[in-house]
Amino acid sequence: MAAGISQEQLEFVYPLRVHIEDTDCTGLVFHANYFNFMERARSEWIENLGMGIAWQKEHELLFVIHSAAIQFLKPARVHEYVEVVSVIKTLKPASIIFAQHLRLAGQPDKILCKAEIKVVCVDKNIQPAALPETFYEKIGRIKT
Amino acid sequence: MAAGISQEQLEFVYPLRVHIEDTDCTGLVFHANYFNFMERARSEWIENLGMGIAWQKEHELLFVIHSAAIQFLKPARVHEYVEVVSVIKTLKPASIIFAQHLRLAGQPDKILCKAEIKVVCVDKNIQPAALPETFYEKIGRIKT
Amino acid sequence: MAAGISQEQLEFVYPLRVHIEDTDCTGLVFHANYFNFMERARSEWIENLGMGIAWQKEHELLFVIHSAAIQFLKPARVHEYVEVVSVIKTLKPASIIFAQHLRLAGQPDKILCKAEIKVVCVDKNIQPAALPETFYEKIGRIKT
Amino acid sequence: MAAGISQEQLEFVYPLRVHIEDTDCTGLVFHANYFNFMERARSEWIENLGMGIAWQKEHELLFVIHSAAIQFLKPARVHEYVEVVSVIKTLKPASIIFAQHLRLAGQPDKILCKAEIKVVCVDKNIQPAALPETFYEKIGRIKT
Repeated sequence: MAAGISQEQLEFVYPLRVHIEDTDCTGLVFHANYFNFMERARSEWIENLGMGIAWQKEHELLFVIHSAAIQFLKPARVHEYVEVVSVIKTLKPASIIFAQHLRLAGQPDKILCKAEIKVVCVDKNIQPAALPETFYEKIGRIKT
Repeated sequence: MAAGISQEQLEFVYPLRVHIEDTDCTGLVFHANYFNFMERARSEWIENLGMGIAWQKEHELLFVIHSAAIQFLKPARVHEYVEVVSVIKTLKPASIIFAQHLRLAGQPDKILCKAEIKVVCVDKNIQPAALPETFYEKIGRIKT
Repeated sequence: MAAGISQEQLEFVYPLRVHIEDTDCTGLVFHANYFNFMERARSEWIENLGMGIAWQKEHELLFVIHSAAIQFLKPARVHEYVEVVSVIKTLKPASIIFAQHLRLAGQPDKILCKAEIKVVCVDKNIQPAALPETFYEKIGRIKT
Repeated sequence: MAAGISQEQLEFVYPLRVHIEDTDCTGLVFHANYFNFMERARSEWIENLGMGIAWQKEHELLFVIHSAAIQFLKPARVHEYVEVVSVIKTLKPASIIFAQHLRLAGQPDKILCKAEIKVVCVDKNIQPAALPETFYEKIGRIKT
Protein backbone atom coordinates (compact mmCIF):
# COMPACT_ATOMS: atom_id res chain seq x y z
CA MET A 1 0.00 0.00 0.00
CA ALA A 2 2.96 2.41 -0.39
CA ALA A 3 2.59 5.32 -2.81
CA GLY A 4 4.82 5.01 -5.84
CA ILE A 5 5.52 5.72 -9.48
CA SER A 6 5.43 2.75 -11.82
CA GLN A 7 8.57 1.73 -13.65
CA GLU A 8 7.62 3.65 -16.74
CA GLN A 9 7.29 6.72 -14.50
CA LEU A 10 4.01 7.49 -16.18
CA GLU A 11 1.62 6.42 -13.47
CA PHE A 12 1.55 7.38 -9.81
CA VAL A 13 -0.56 5.27 -7.45
CA TYR A 14 -1.56 6.85 -4.14
CA PRO A 15 -3.45 4.78 -1.55
CA LEU A 16 -5.64 6.26 1.13
CA ARG A 17 -8.25 5.30 3.66
CA VAL A 18 -11.72 6.86 3.55
CA HIS A 19 -12.39 8.47 6.93
CA ILE A 20 -15.66 9.47 8.62
CA GLU A 21 -14.82 13.13 7.94
CA ASP A 22 -14.92 12.41 4.18
CA THR A 23 -18.51 11.15 4.26
CA ASP A 24 -21.83 12.96 4.53
CA CYS A 25 -25.34 12.19 5.72
CA THR A 26 -26.13 10.14 2.62
CA GLY A 27 -23.67 7.61 4.06
CA LEU A 28 -21.30 8.06 1.12
CA VAL A 29 -18.25 10.22 0.45
CA PHE A 30 -19.25 13.88 -0.05
CA HIS A 31 -18.69 14.76 -3.71
CA ALA A 32 -16.28 17.66 -3.17
CA ASN A 33 -14.02 15.45 -1.07
CA TYR A 34 -13.04 13.35 -4.07
CA PHE A 35 -11.12 16.45 -5.17
CA ASN A 36 -9.23 16.30 -1.87
CA PHE A 37 -8.23 12.72 -2.63
CA MET A 38 -7.05 13.72 -6.11
CA GLU A 39 -5.14 16.68 -4.69
CA ARG A 40 -3.32 14.57 -2.09
CA ALA A 41 -2.14 12.26 -4.87
CA ARG A 42 -0.88 15.10 -7.08
CA SER A 43 0.85 16.83 -4.16
CA GLU A 44 2.53 13.63 -3.07
CA TRP A 45 3.74 13.01 -6.62
CA ILE A 46 5.02 16.54 -7.07
CA GLU A 47 6.66 16.35 -3.63
CA ASN A 48 8.30 13.07 -4.66
CA LEU A 49 9.66 14.83 -7.74
CA GLY A 50 11.26 17.39 -5.44
CA MET A 51 9.01 20.28 -6.41
CA GLY A 52 6.56 20.39 -3.52
CA ILE A 53 5.17 23.43 -1.72
CA ALA A 54 8.52 24.28 -0.08
CA TRP A 55 10.32 24.16 -3.44
CA GLN A 56 7.56 26.23 -5.07
CA LYS A 57 7.80 28.95 -2.41
CA GLU A 58 11.58 29.06 -2.74
CA HIS A 59 11.28 29.50 -6.51
CA GLU A 60 8.37 31.95 -6.22
CA LEU A 61 6.15 29.67 -8.23
CA LEU A 62 2.82 28.11 -7.39
CA PHE A 63 0.97 25.26 -9.08
CA VAL A 64 -2.69 26.28 -9.09
CA ILE A 65 -5.76 24.59 -10.48
CA HIS A 66 -7.14 26.11 -13.65
CA SER A 67 -10.07 23.81 -14.30
CA ALA A 68 -11.38 20.37 -13.52
CA ALA A 69 -13.91 17.86 -14.80
CA ILE A 70 -15.06 14.86 -12.83
CA GLN A 71 -17.41 11.91 -13.34
CA PHE A 72 -18.78 10.09 -10.34
CA LEU A 73 -19.26 6.42 -11.23
CA LYS A 74 -19.69 4.55 -7.96
CA PRO A 75 -19.68 5.88 -4.41
CA ALA A 76 -16.82 5.36 -1.96
CA ARG A 77 -17.78 4.44 1.60
CA VAL A 78 -16.30 4.95 5.02
CA HIS A 79 -13.24 2.94 5.91
CA GLU A 80 -12.62 1.62 2.40
CA TYR A 81 -9.07 1.57 1.13
CA VAL A 82 -8.92 3.30 -2.21
CA GLU A 83 -6.19 4.34 -4.62
CA VAL A 84 -5.82 7.42 -6.74
CA VAL A 85 -4.14 6.56 -10.04
CA SER A 86 -2.63 9.61 -11.74
CA VAL A 87 -1.05 10.09 -15.14
CA ILE A 88 0.07 13.19 -16.94
CA LYS A 89 -2.14 13.47 -19.98
CA THR A 90 -0.79 16.70 -21.46
CA LEU A 91 2.32 18.68 -20.64
CA LYS A 92 2.55 22.22 -21.97
CA PRO A 93 5.13 24.94 -21.24
CA ALA A 94 3.08 26.39 -18.38
CA SER A 95 0.48 23.76 -17.61
CA ILE A 96 -0.11 20.11 -16.86
CA ILE A 97 -3.30 18.14 -17.39
CA PHE A 98 -3.55 15.25 -14.97
CA ALA A 99 -5.92 12.36 -15.69
CA GLN A 100 -6.79 10.75 -12.38
CA HIS A 101 -9.12 8.06 -11.23
CA LEU A 102 -10.09 6.56 -7.92
CA ARG A 103 -10.47 2.81 -7.53
CA LEU A 104 -10.90 0.35 -4.70
CA ALA A 105 -7.40 -0.63 -3.57
CA GLY A 106 -5.97 -3.41 -5.67
CA GLN A 107 -9.11 -3.68 -7.81
CA PRO A 108 -8.29 -2.00 -11.13
CA ASP A 109 -11.82 -2.63 -12.42
CA LYS A 110 -13.66 -0.95 -9.52
CA ILE A 111 -13.33 2.63 -10.68
CA LEU A 112 -15.22 5.03 -8.44
CA CYS A 113 -14.58 8.31 -10.22
CA LYS A 114 -12.52 9.79 -13.00
CA ALA A 115 -11.22 13.33 -13.30
CA GLU A 116 -9.13 15.60 -15.46
CA ILE A 117 -7.43 18.41 -13.61
CA LYS A 118 -5.55 21.22 -15.35
CA VAL A 119 -2.83 22.74 -13.21
CA VAL A 120 -1.03 25.89 -14.28
CA CYS A 121 2.26 27.25 -13.05
CA VAL A 122 2.00 30.87 -11.89
CA ASP A 123 4.46 33.36 -10.44
CA LYS A 124 4.01 35.40 -7.29
CA ASN A 125 1.70 37.82 -9.14
CA ILE A 126 -0.53 34.87 -10.10
CA GLN A 127 0.61 35.29 -13.73
CA PRO A 128 1.37 32.23 -15.90
CA ALA A 129 4.99 31.14 -15.68
CA ALA A 130 6.98 28.45 -17.49
CA LEU A 131 7.21 25.13 -15.68
CA PRO A 132 10.81 24.68 -14.53
CA GLU A 133 13.04 22.57 -16.79
CA THR A 134 13.70 20.29 -13.87
CA PHE A 135 10.06 19.27 -13.98
CA TYR A 136 10.40 17.85 -17.50
CA GLU A 137 13.62 16.10 -16.56
CA LYS A 138 12.14 14.51 -13.48
CA ILE A 139 8.95 13.48 -15.17
CA GLY A 140 11.05 12.00 -17.95
CA ARG A 141 9.03 13.58 -20.73
CA ILE A 142 9.31 16.44 -23.15
CA LYS A 143 6.71 19.14 -23.41
CA THR A 144 4.28 18.87 -26.30
CA MET B 1 -28.09 39.68 0.94
CA ALA B 2 -31.08 37.33 1.23
CA ALA B 3 -31.14 34.25 -0.98
CA GLY B 4 -33.87 34.30 -3.58
CA ILE B 5 -35.19 33.31 -6.94
CA SER B 6 -35.56 36.05 -9.55
CA GLN B 7 -39.00 36.89 -10.89
CA GLU B 8 -38.54 34.70 -13.95
CA GLN B 9 -37.81 31.83 -11.52
CA LEU B 10 -34.83 30.97 -13.65
CA GLU B 11 -32.03 32.27 -11.48
CA PHE B 12 -31.33 31.61 -7.82
CA VAL B 13 -28.84 33.88 -6.04
CA TYR B 14 -27.27 32.54 -2.85
CA PRO B 15 -24.97 34.79 -0.80
CA LEU B 16 -22.31 33.51 1.56
CA ARG B 17 -19.31 34.65 3.52
CA VAL B 18 -15.90 33.07 2.91
CA HIS B 19 -14.62 31.72 6.24
CA ILE B 20 -11.11 30.81 7.41
CA GLU B 21 -12.03 27.12 7.16
CA ASP B 22 -12.60 27.57 3.40
CA THR B 23 -9.05 28.79 2.74
CA ASP B 24 -5.73 26.98 2.57
CA CYS B 25 -2.06 27.81 3.06
CA THR B 26 -1.85 29.61 -0.28
CA GLY B 27 -4.03 32.27 1.37
CA LEU B 28 -6.88 31.61 -1.06
CA VAL B 29 -9.98 29.43 -1.01
CA PHE B 30 -9.07 25.74 -1.40
CA HIS B 31 -10.26 24.58 -4.83
CA ALA B 32 -12.52 21.75 -3.66
CA ASN B 33 -14.39 24.13 -1.36
CA TYR B 34 -15.90 26.00 -4.30
CA PHE B 35 -17.95 22.85 -4.81
CA ASN B 36 -19.23 23.23 -1.26
CA PHE B 37 -20.38 26.77 -2.09
CA MET B 38 -22.16 25.52 -5.22
CA GLU B 39 -23.75 22.68 -3.26
CA ARG B 40 -25.11 24.98 -0.56
CA ALA B 41 -26.77 27.08 -3.25
CA ARG B 42 -28.38 24.09 -4.98
CA SER B 43 -29.56 22.59 -1.69
CA GLU B 44 -31.05 25.88 -0.56
CA TRP B 45 -32.86 26.25 -3.87
CA ILE B 46 -34.18 22.69 -3.83
CA GLU B 47 -35.19 23.15 -0.19
CA ASN B 48 -37.00 26.36 -1.14
CA LEU B 49 -38.86 24.39 -3.81
CA GLY B 50 -40.02 22.02 -1.06
CA MET B 51 -37.95 19.04 -2.20
CA GLY B 52 -35.02 19.12 0.22
CA ILE B 53 -33.33 16.22 1.97
CA ALA B 54 -36.33 15.51 4.23
CA TRP B 55 -38.68 15.41 1.24
CA GLN B 56 -36.26 13.18 -0.68
CA LYS B 57 -36.01 10.69 2.18
CA GLU B 58 -39.78 10.60 2.53
CA HIS B 59 -40.12 9.86 -1.19
CA GLU B 60 -37.19 7.41 -1.23
CA LEU B 61 -35.39 9.52 -3.78
CA LEU B 62 -31.98 11.13 -3.66
CA PHE B 63 -30.48 13.82 -5.86
CA VAL B 64 -26.88 12.78 -6.42
CA ILE B 65 -24.11 14.34 -8.46
CA HIS B 66 -23.30 12.59 -11.70
CA SER B 67 -20.55 14.82 -13.03
CA ALA B 68 -19.15 18.29 -12.75
CA ALA B 69 -16.89 20.67 -14.64
CA ILE B 70 -15.44 23.82 -13.15
CA GLN B 71 -13.24 26.69 -14.27
CA PHE B 72 -11.37 28.73 -11.70
CA LEU B 73 -11.09 32.32 -12.94
CA LYS B 74 -10.11 34.43 -9.93
CA PRO B 75 -9.48 33.37 -6.36
CA ALA B 76 -11.86 34.09 -3.50
CA ARG B 77 -10.30 35.28 -0.25
CA VAL B 78 -11.14 35.04 3.42
CA HIS B 79 -14.02 37.14 4.67
CA GLU B 80 -15.26 38.18 1.24
CA TYR B 81 -18.97 38.16 0.60
CA VAL B 82 -19.70 36.19 -2.51
CA GLU B 83 -22.80 34.99 -4.32
CA VAL B 84 -23.51 31.76 -6.11
CA VAL B 85 -25.75 32.37 -9.11
CA SER B 86 -27.52 29.21 -10.27
CA VAL B 87 -29.66 28.48 -13.30
CA ILE B 88 -31.07 25.26 -14.66
CA LYS B 89 -29.41 24.74 -18.00
CA THR B 90 -30.98 21.42 -18.96
CA LEU B 91 -33.88 19.52 -17.47
CA LYS B 92 -34.31 15.87 -18.46
CA PRO B 93 -36.69 13.24 -17.10
CA ALA B 94 -34.19 11.99 -14.53
CA SER B 95 -31.50 14.66 -14.42
CA ILE B 96 -30.82 18.36 -14.07
CA ILE B 97 -27.78 20.27 -15.31
CA PHE B 98 -27.15 23.33 -13.19
CA ALA B 99 -24.96 26.14 -14.53
CA GLN B 100 -23.53 28.00 -11.56
CA HIS B 101 -21.06 30.77 -11.05
CA LEU B 102 -19.53 32.48 -8.09
CA ARG B 103 -19.11 36.26 -8.04
CA LEU B 104 -18.20 38.93 -5.54
CA ALA B 105 -21.47 40.01 -3.89
CA GLY B 106 -23.27 42.63 -5.90
CA GLN B 107 -20.55 42.73 -8.57
CA PRO B 108 -21.92 40.80 -11.56
CA ASP B 109 -18.66 41.30 -13.49
CA LYS B 110 -16.36 39.85 -10.85
CA ILE B 111 -16.85 36.20 -11.67
CA LEU B 112 -14.58 33.96 -9.61
CA CYS B 113 -15.50 30.57 -10.98
CA LYS B 114 -18.01 28.86 -13.24
CA ALA B 115 -19.30 25.33 -13.03
CA GLU B 116 -21.73 22.91 -14.62
CA ILE B 117 -23.07 20.25 -12.29
CA LYS B 118 -25.19 17.35 -13.46
CA VAL B 119 -27.49 16.02 -10.77
CA VAL B 120 -29.42 12.78 -11.25
CA CYS B 121 -32.43 11.54 -9.37
CA VAL B 122 -31.94 8.02 -7.99
CA ASP B 123 -34.09 5.66 -5.96
CA LYS B 124 -33.07 3.83 -2.78
CA ASN B 125 -31.11 1.31 -4.84
CA ILE B 126 -29.11 4.16 -6.39
CA GLN B 127 -30.86 3.47 -9.72
CA PRO B 128 -32.03 6.38 -11.96
CA ALA B 129 -35.55 7.49 -11.17
CA ALA B 130 -37.84 10.04 -12.79
CA LEU B 131 -37.78 13.49 -11.25
CA PRO B 132 -41.11 14.05 -9.52
CA GLU B 133 -43.72 15.99 -11.50
CA THR B 134 -43.88 18.50 -8.69
CA PHE B 135 -40.32 19.47 -9.52
CA TYR B 136 -41.30 20.62 -13.02
CA GLU B 137 -44.30 22.45 -11.66
CA LYS B 138 -42.34 24.26 -9.01
CA ILE B 139 -39.50 25.16 -11.30
CA GLY B 140 -42.06 26.43 -13.82
CA ARG B 141 -40.55 24.61 -16.74
CA ILE B 142 -41.21 21.58 -18.87
CA LYS B 143 -38.68 18.85 -19.38
CA THR B 144 -36.77 18.92 -22.67
CA MET C 1 -31.89 35.70 11.39
CA ALA C 2 -29.30 38.52 11.14
CA ALA C 3 -26.13 38.24 13.22
CA GLY C 4 -25.87 40.86 15.93
CA ILE C 5 -24.63 41.95 19.33
CA SER C 6 -27.23 42.39 22.04
CA GLN C 7 -27.77 45.81 23.57
CA GLU C 8 -25.50 45.08 26.49
CA GLN C 9 -22.80 44.18 23.94
CA LEU C 10 -22.08 41.06 25.91
CA GLU C 11 -23.68 38.47 23.68
CA PHE C 12 -23.22 37.88 19.97
CA VAL C 13 -25.74 35.67 18.18
CA TYR C 14 -24.67 34.16 14.86
CA PRO C 15 -27.18 32.13 12.81
CA LEU C 16 -26.20 29.51 10.28
CA ARG C 17 -27.64 26.70 8.24
CA VAL C 18 -26.31 23.16 8.61
CA HIS C 19 -25.20 21.95 5.18
CA ILE C 20 -24.63 18.45 3.82
CA GLU C 21 -20.87 19.07 3.93
CA ASP C 22 -21.10 19.48 7.74
CA THR C 23 -22.55 16.02 8.29
CA ASP C 24 -21.00 12.57 8.23
CA CYS C 25 -22.14 9.00 7.62
CA THR C 26 -23.80 8.77 11.03
CA GLY C 27 -26.35 11.21 9.60
CA LEU C 28 -25.37 13.89 12.13
CA VAL C 29 -22.96 16.82 12.11
CA PHE C 30 -19.34 15.62 12.29
CA HIS C 31 -17.94 16.56 15.70
CA ALA C 32 -14.99 18.65 14.50
CA ASN C 33 -17.31 20.79 12.41
CA TYR C 34 -18.95 22.29 15.50
CA PHE C 35 -15.62 24.08 15.94
CA ASN C 36 -16.08 25.56 12.47
CA PHE C 37 -19.47 26.92 13.52
CA MET C 38 -17.95 28.44 16.67
CA GLU C 39 -15.09 29.93 14.66
CA ARG C 40 -17.40 31.57 12.12
CA ALA C 41 -19.25 33.25 14.99
CA ARG C 42 -16.08 34.55 16.65
CA SER C 43 -14.64 35.77 13.33
CA GLU C 44 -17.84 37.55 12.43
CA TRP C 45 -17.94 39.23 15.83
CA ILE C 46 -14.28 40.28 15.68
CA GLU C 47 -14.82 41.49 12.11
CA ASN C 48 -17.83 43.50 13.30
CA LEU C 49 -15.62 45.08 15.94
CA GLY C 50 -13.29 46.18 13.15
CA MET C 51 -10.44 43.84 14.05
CA GLY C 52 -10.84 41.06 11.51
CA ILE C 53 -8.15 39.25 9.55
CA ALA C 54 -7.34 42.29 7.40
CA TRP C 55 -6.91 44.49 10.48
CA GLN C 56 -4.80 41.81 12.17
CA LYS C 57 -2.45 41.53 9.20
CA GLU C 58 -2.08 45.29 9.01
CA HIS C 59 -1.15 45.41 12.71
CA GLU C 60 1.06 42.31 12.50
CA LEU C 61 -1.07 40.53 15.05
CA LEU C 62 -2.94 37.26 14.87
CA PHE C 63 -5.64 35.85 17.11
CA VAL C 64 -4.85 32.15 17.49
CA ILE C 65 -6.52 29.41 19.46
CA HIS C 66 -4.69 28.32 22.57
CA SER C 67 -7.07 25.68 23.88
CA ALA C 68 -10.65 24.55 23.70
CA ALA C 69 -13.12 22.40 25.59
CA ILE C 70 -16.42 21.25 24.18
CA GLN C 71 -19.41 19.23 25.34
CA PHE C 72 -21.70 17.62 22.80
CA LEU C 73 -25.24 17.55 24.19
CA LYS C 74 -27.55 16.87 21.26
CA PRO C 75 -26.69 16.34 17.62
CA ALA C 76 -27.36 18.90 14.90
CA ARG C 77 -28.80 17.59 11.64
CA VAL C 78 -28.66 18.58 8.01
CA HIS C 79 -30.58 21.66 6.97
CA GLU C 80 -31.39 22.81 10.50
CA TYR C 81 -31.06 26.48 11.30
CA VAL C 82 -28.90 26.90 14.36
CA GLU C 83 -27.38 29.83 16.24
CA VAL C 84 -24.03 30.21 17.90
CA VAL C 85 -24.34 32.35 21.03
CA SER C 86 -21.01 33.82 22.13
CA VAL C 87 -19.98 35.76 25.20
CA ILE C 88 -16.60 36.87 26.46
CA LYS C 89 -16.05 35.03 29.71
CA THR C 90 -12.59 36.30 30.59
CA LEU C 91 -10.56 39.11 29.12
CA LYS C 92 -6.84 39.23 29.97
CA PRO C 93 -4.10 41.48 28.59
CA ALA C 94 -3.16 39.00 25.86
CA SER C 95 -6.04 36.53 25.76
CA ILE C 96 -9.79 36.12 25.54
CA ILE C 97 -11.86 33.19 26.74
CA PHE C 98 -15.05 32.86 24.74
CA ALA C 99 -17.96 30.84 26.12
CA GLN C 100 -20.05 29.71 23.17
CA HIS C 101 -23.01 27.46 22.68
CA LEU C 102 -24.97 26.20 19.74
CA ARG C 103 -28.77 26.07 19.84
CA LEU C 104 -31.60 25.48 17.43
CA ALA C 105 -32.50 28.88 15.97
CA GLY C 106 -34.90 30.78 18.19
CA GLN C 107 -35.07 27.94 20.74
CA PRO C 108 -32.91 29.01 23.68
CA ASP C 109 -33.58 25.73 25.50
CA LYS C 110 -32.43 23.45 22.69
CA ILE C 111 -28.71 23.64 23.35
CA LEU C 112 -26.75 21.31 21.10
CA CYS C 113 -23.23 21.90 22.35
CA LYS C 114 -21.25 24.18 24.64
CA ALA C 115 -17.64 25.22 24.33
CA GLU C 116 -14.99 27.39 25.91
CA ILE C 117 -12.34 28.62 23.52
CA LYS C 118 -9.21 30.47 24.64
CA VAL C 119 -7.83 32.79 21.99
CA VAL C 120 -4.45 34.45 22.42
CA CYS C 121 -3.07 37.46 20.61
CA VAL C 122 0.34 36.78 19.05
CA ASP C 123 2.78 38.85 17.01
CA LYS C 124 4.35 37.86 13.70
CA ASN C 125 6.83 35.61 15.53
CA ILE C 126 3.90 33.76 17.13
CA GLN C 127 4.87 35.29 20.51
CA PRO C 128 2.17 36.55 22.92
CA ALA C 129 1.29 40.19 22.37
CA ALA C 130 -1.03 42.57 24.20
CA LEU C 131 -4.51 42.83 22.81
CA PRO C 132 -4.89 46.28 21.25
CA GLU C 133 -6.54 48.94 23.46
CA THR C 134 -9.15 49.42 20.77
CA PHE C 135 -10.34 45.90 21.49
CA TYR C 136 -11.28 46.79 25.07
CA GLU C 137 -12.93 50.00 23.93
CA LYS C 138 -15.00 48.28 21.29
CA ILE C 139 -16.01 45.42 23.50
CA GLY C 140 -16.98 47.94 26.15
CA ARG C 141 -15.16 46.20 28.94
CA ILE C 142 -11.99 46.52 30.94
CA LYS C 143 -9.45 43.76 31.21
CA THR C 144 -9.48 41.74 34.42
CA MET D 1 5.46 4.72 9.20
CA ALA D 2 2.93 1.91 9.65
CA ALA D 3 0.18 2.39 12.23
CA GLY D 4 0.46 0.01 15.14
CA ILE D 5 -0.16 -0.81 18.76
CA SER D 6 2.87 -1.08 21.01
CA GLN D 7 3.71 -4.40 22.67
CA GLU D 8 1.96 -3.42 25.87
CA GLN D 9 -1.15 -2.76 23.75
CA LEU D 10 -1.56 0.52 25.57
CA GLU D 11 -0.38 2.94 22.94
CA PHE D 12 -1.48 3.25 19.34
CA VAL D 13 0.67 5.31 16.97
CA TYR D 14 -0.97 6.58 13.79
CA PRO D 15 1.12 8.43 11.20
CA LEU D 16 -0.29 10.87 8.69
CA ARG D 17 0.76 13.52 6.23
CA VAL D 18 -0.53 17.09 6.56
CA HIS D 19 -2.24 18.03 3.30
CA ILE D 20 -3.07 21.44 1.80
CA GLU D 21 -6.75 20.84 2.61
CA ASP D 22 -5.83 20.72 6.33
CA THR D 23 -4.33 24.20 6.36
CA ASP D 24 -5.89 27.66 6.33
CA CYS D 25 -4.91 31.16 5.25
CA THR D 26 -2.66 31.64 8.29
CA GLY D 27 -0.39 29.08 6.63
CA LEU D 28 -0.90 26.61 9.48
CA VAL D 29 -3.26 23.70 10.10
CA PHE D 30 -6.81 24.93 10.83
CA HIS D 31 -7.56 24.26 14.49
CA ALA D 32 -10.66 22.10 13.98
CA ASN D 33 -8.72 19.80 11.69
CA TYR D 34 -6.57 18.51 14.54
CA PHE D 35 -9.75 16.78 15.69
CA ASN D 36 -9.91 15.05 12.32
CA PHE D 37 -6.38 13.75 12.84
CA MET D 38 -7.31 12.47 16.33
CA GLU D 39 -10.46 10.87 14.97
CA ARG D 40 -8.62 9.02 12.19
CA ALA D 41 -6.30 7.53 14.80
CA ARG D 42 -9.12 6.40 17.08
CA SER D 43 -11.11 4.95 14.18
CA GLU D 44 -8.10 3.07 12.86
CA TRP D 45 -7.41 1.66 16.31
CA ILE D 46 -11.03 0.62 16.87
CA GLU D 47 -11.11 -0.85 13.36
CA ASN D 48 -7.92 -2.79 14.15
CA LEU D 49 -9.64 -4.14 17.26
CA GLY D 50 -12.42 -5.43 15.01
CA MET D 51 -15.08 -3.01 16.22
CA GLY D 52 -15.14 -0.42 13.44
CA ILE D 53 -18.14 1.27 11.85
CA ALA D 54 -19.32 -1.94 10.12
CA TRP D 55 -19.18 -3.88 13.38
CA GLN D 56 -20.98 -1.08 15.22
CA LYS D 57 -23.80 -0.99 12.67
CA GLU D 58 -24.18 -4.76 12.84
CA HIS D 59 -24.44 -4.59 16.64
CA GLU D 60 -26.68 -1.50 16.59
CA LEU D 61 -24.15 0.45 18.59
CA LEU D 62 -22.36 3.68 17.84
CA PHE D 63 -19.31 5.21 19.48
CA VAL D 64 -20.04 8.94 19.69
CA ILE D 65 -18.07 11.81 21.13
CA HIS D 66 -19.33 13.13 24.43
CA SER D 67 -16.78 15.85 25.11
CA ALA D 68 -13.28 16.93 24.21
CA ALA D 69 -10.54 19.20 25.49
CA ILE D 70 -7.53 20.23 23.44
CA GLN D 71 -4.41 22.32 23.90
CA PHE D 72 -2.62 23.70 20.89
CA LEU D 73 1.12 23.85 21.62
CA LYS D 74 2.87 24.30 18.28
CA PRO D 75 1.38 24.55 14.81
CA ALA D 76 1.58 21.79 12.22
CA ARG D 77 2.41 22.85 8.69
CA VAL D 78 1.66 21.58 5.21
CA HIS D 79 3.39 18.41 4.08
CA GLU D 80 4.80 17.54 7.49
CA TYR D 81 4.63 13.93 8.62
CA VAL D 82 3.05 13.75 12.03
CA GLU D 83 1.91 10.99 14.35
CA VAL D 84 -1.10 10.75 16.61
CA VAL D 85 -0.23 8.86 19.78
CA SER D 86 -3.30 7.49 21.55
CA VAL D 87 -3.76 5.80 24.89
CA ILE D 88 -6.87 4.83 26.80
CA LYS D 89 -6.83 6.92 29.93
CA THR D 90 -10.10 5.74 31.50
CA LEU D 91 -12.34 2.83 30.63
CA LYS D 92 -15.85 2.81 32.12
CA PRO D 93 -18.78 0.49 31.41
CA ALA D 94 -20.21 2.75 28.72
CA SER D 95 -17.40 5.20 27.94
CA ILE D 96 -13.75 5.54 27.03
CA ILE D 97 -11.51 8.54 27.63
CA PHE D 98 -8.72 8.68 25.08
CA ALA D 99 -5.63 10.78 25.77
CA GLN D 100 -4.10 11.68 22.44
CA HIS D 101 -1.26 13.87 21.27
CA LEU D 102 0.13 14.89 17.93
CA ARG D 103 3.89 15.01 17.37
CA LEU D 104 6.24 15.39 14.45
CA ALA D 105 6.90 11.89 13.11
CA GLY D 106 9.65 10.15 15.03
CA GLN D 107 10.25 13.16 17.27
CA PRO D 108 8.65 12.32 20.62
CA ASP D 109 9.62 15.73 22.05
CA LYS D 110 7.97 17.81 19.33
CA ILE D 111 4.43 17.70 20.64
CA LEU D 112 2.08 19.86 18.60
CA CYS D 113 -1.15 19.38 20.48
CA LYS D 114 -2.69 17.30 23.26
CA ALA D 115 -6.29 16.26 23.66
CA GLU D 116 -8.62 14.25 25.84
CA ILE D 117 -11.64 12.85 24.05
CA LYS D 118 -14.50 11.11 25.83
CA VAL D 119 -16.31 8.60 23.64
CA VAL D 120 -19.56 7.01 24.77
CA CYS D 121 -21.22 3.90 23.46
CA VAL D 122 -24.86 4.48 22.49
CA ASP D 123 -27.59 2.30 21.07
CA LYS D 124 -29.75 3.04 18.03
CA ASN D 125 -31.87 5.45 20.10
CA ILE D 126 -28.73 7.39 21.01
CA GLN D 127 -29.07 6.12 24.61
CA PRO D 128 -25.98 5.01 26.60
CA ALA D 129 -25.18 1.33 26.16
CA ALA D 130 -22.58 -0.92 27.73
CA LEU D 131 -19.38 -1.32 25.78
CA PRO D 132 -19.27 -4.87 24.44
CA GLU D 133 -17.24 -7.36 26.50
CA THR D 134 -15.14 -8.06 23.44
CA PHE D 135 -13.84 -4.52 23.68
CA TYR D 136 -12.30 -5.15 27.10
CA GLU D 137 -10.86 -8.43 25.94
CA LYS D 138 -9.31 -6.93 22.86
CA ILE D 139 -7.94 -3.92 24.63
CA GLY D 140 -6.50 -6.24 27.27
CA ARG D 141 -7.81 -4.25 30.19
CA ILE D 142 -10.56 -4.42 32.75
CA LYS D 143 -13.04 -1.64 33.26
CA THR D 144 -12.43 0.65 36.23
